[in-house]
Amino acid sequence: MVSPMKDCDLLINCGWLLTVDAENTVLTDHSIVVNDGRISAILPRESALNTYRTDTLVERREHIVAPGLINAHTHLAMNLMRGFADDLPLMTWLQEKIWPLEQQHVNADFVAAGTRLALAESIRAGVTCVNDMYFFADRTADELTRAGLRGRVGMLVLDFATAWAKDAASYIQKGLELHDALRNNERVSTCFAPHAPYSVSREPLERIQVLSTELDLPVHMHIHETATEVHEFEATHGMRPLAMLRDIGMLGPSLIAVHMTQLNSEEQELVSHNGVHLAHCPESNMKLASGCAPIAALLAAGGNVAIGTDGAASNNDLDLLAELRTASLLAKMTSSDAAACNAEQSLRMATINGAKALGMEHLTGSLEPGKAADIICVETHSPEMQPVYHPVSQLVYAAGRESVTDVWVDGQALMQDRRLLTIDIKETISDAKQWASTLCG
Amino acid sequence: MVSPMKDCDLLINCGWLLTVDAENTVLTDHSIVVNDGRISAILPRESALNTYRTDTLVERREHIVAPGLINAHTHLAMNLMRGFADDLPLMTWLQEKIWPLEQQHVNADFVAAGTRLALAESIRAGVTCVNDMYFFADRTADELTRAGLRGRVGMLVLDFATAWAKDAASYIQKGLELHDALRNNERVSTCFAPHAPYSVSREPLERIQVLSTELDLPVHMHIHETATEVHEFEATHGMRPLAMLRDIGMLGPSLIAVHMTQLNSEEQELVSHNGVHLAHCPESNMKLASGCAPIAALLAAGGNVAIGTDGAASNNDLDLLAELRTASLLAKMTSSDAAACNAEQSLRMATINGAKALGMEHLTGSLEPGKAADIICVETHSPEMQPVYHPVSQLVYAAGRESVTDVWVDGQALMQDRRLLTIDIKETISDAKQWASTLCG
Repeated sequence: MVSPMKDCDLLINCGWLLTVDAENTVLTDHSIVVNDGRISAILPRESALNTYRTDTLVERREHIVAPGLINAHTHLAMNLMRGFADDLPLMTWLQEKIWPLEQQHVNADFVAAGTRLALAESIRAGVTCVNDMYFFADRTADELTRAGLRGRVGMLVLDFATAWAKDAASYIQKGLELHDALRNNERVSTCFAPHAPYSVSREPLERIQVLSTELDLPVHMHIHETATEVHEFEATHGMRPLAMLRDIGMLGPSLIAVHMTQLNSEEQELVSHNGVHLAHCPESNMKLASGCAPIAALLAAGGNVAIGTDGAASNNDLDLLAELRTASLLAKMTSSDAAACNAEQSLRMATINGAKALGMEHLTGSLEPGKAADIICVETHSPEMQPVYHPVSQLVYAAGRESVTDVWVDGQALMQDRRLLTIDIKETISDAKQWASTLCG
Repeated sequence: MVSPMKDCDLLINCGWLLTVDAENTVLTDHSIVVNDGRISAILPRESALNTYRTDTLVERREHIVAPGLINAHTHLAMNLMRGFADDLPLMTWLQEKIWPLEQQHVNADFVAAGTRLALAESIRAGVTCVNDMYFFADRTADELTRAGLRGRVGMLVLDFATAWAKDAASYIQKGLELHDALRNNERVSTCFAPHAPYSVSREPLERIQVLSTELDLPVHMHIHETATEVHEFEATHGMRPLAMLRDIGMLGPSLIAVHMTQLNSEEQELVSHNGVHLAHCPESNMKLASGCAPIAALLAAGGNVAIGTDGAASNNDLDLLAELRTASLLAKMTSSDAAACNAEQSLRMATINGAKALGMEHLTGSLEPGKAADIICVETHSPEMQPVYHPVSQLVYAAGRESVTDVWVDGQALMQDRRLLTIDIKETISDAKQWASTLCG
């Protein structure tokens, strides 16, 4: 007796399937079965063909199939400032170029246009989930929702006035309103995003820590990005920023600490021991000559390291695969250990570690039954991707963003055969050009 | 009276034209006029249209047009070993993985197939000129000639026997035979390529130095790649490798020194002062945890720094734009100076500095009348390339290999609108797969 065929929404036949489960299992010639946005089964291709029928069968038998990439730190809207000011150190770049430009030009439409450009780039690069920090996060949330990505938008807090809010209290208030507005959004949620210890005073940080605990939301903050910033803080406050954050109870698994290029050995211990997540942004740190977070040591100590691109104004792209590769190569160089941050560990940083940092590991970051169908396919039939000996190495060390062919979030296709399905590229580019001429005007 | 129109072989209308001349001149809305493989004029588009007529008018008015990129150090045939052995330090990688594999499998056909794969990748990445070092360089030269690239193939020398030659004297002999065979080849020539001070004894190095002077040919060698190698050499010979090379008169403008991650301050001075060219391979050095050449200091001292990808077995790509970006970012980080190795300097490293290192600056490396028409076009109409504020920054910090659309060498089109014209990709990939299964067998 033949058992009846089961229906499914989507069936993907994969050449190599990188699950990024606890054992980093790699499966060959397996299929992913998707129903209601979730992965309902992963099984050998032959079994799948004998068990499931679907209207949407996707053949990717020469592709590497992996979890969608998670960009753990970015400023999407800053895509409109890509290449606006290069070859400058952080404080000159911020104070003389970026902040004046933002004061003059950033508004809700700017954020919408910049985010759209950034999301087109992100999807094309295989990114399915972002952790954003910027003004007018309501517009960022709208664009994420429209484009279909998963993400957290930061409830930005600064001490000083901008077009978005006038003081720390009003930033927090606007953030909380956004948090309420997004309560039924299935893909986009919020987190607190105090900019940095040097730009947000202790009192609002203390309030944010209380709210973060009450609402069970992560706190996303730039911390110890440069030596200058740490020294100046110490000169003013008599302690390093991390010590102040420890004092107010912020060093725990709800904290996504961005950059952290300046960590002494006690601080490395403090961070690992307390379960603080690092959002490592190596290319931005290199470009601004800020330094390099000691990720080989943090990983060895069991710390959670995720990867972010930072904004395109300091990177100058949102290419998470390239960022991942840089992270791995840089960790090897700075730790003088070619085995450090190997291909498997690197892939985890851009997937499951990012999910952990964002408090989403139950939902995304690996390809396992029960999780959301956040999936990317990467072709191997170009000269750059041949031959394939080890698919994880190939993805981490050889693949470029242009190798990504398909992207799904919750089983919804956002890109198919390199064609974007949720964003109008022509209009997006035309808007970006318009904004660029305004910024130069 | 209207002056008569002049004929030309090729006319390219450029959005932005990065000349990489002595002043790093950037021209907008200019045209390049090509005749007999040479650039015969560069002039405003309107003047060009009123002066020249051609059967081959190429409209690239939204493109960045730049000199073809020069890969100053690679092992093309090693493309067949891409990703074969990752996450290992140099000596383990060489002695336990690469050399045994080479001893068992490398032959003339391997080199032809690997080189073809590498050249497909190189052209697609905007590379028009390579400096190669590998066994069976006769086959490498054949493939370069067929694909239409410019380059030098190394007359490899090692102390030990391989399928190519049995001892240093026979390597030199086979090299000189190849040199003679290529004497009428307009694009492909040779240089001496003693592998490294630790793998070639002093006596053959002395002979190579004499021959290099007699024949006016560069010497291309791995030097001071790792600390271990330098220390072991010092323990055996009582001096560091660079001191030995100085003793035999090799430190001069004919030397292309690859890697040089281990340079003390006297050696930096020695290298800059003597006009030694550095072929900097940052990604390979990072991946093998070898270290980082002090290029910011060398550039500041007036040294000539060119860029190489190394072979795909240790990189794992031949993406010179990415290498360039890594070089710039890494120089900023290691020198703690965000202004170090700026976009203009970086672009020079991948173009004119490479031409200088290879002794080809009269011919290629910049877009100036009289030079060969070695030209690439890079699109700006994708989300990753918008907006464009500074075209040099955009090329160095934002463009990916996939942005390269067209490639000419000596005015001959090797790629047009991303379509390769001199290499059959399908056959090349099929051969690569065949070899990969042999290597795994």
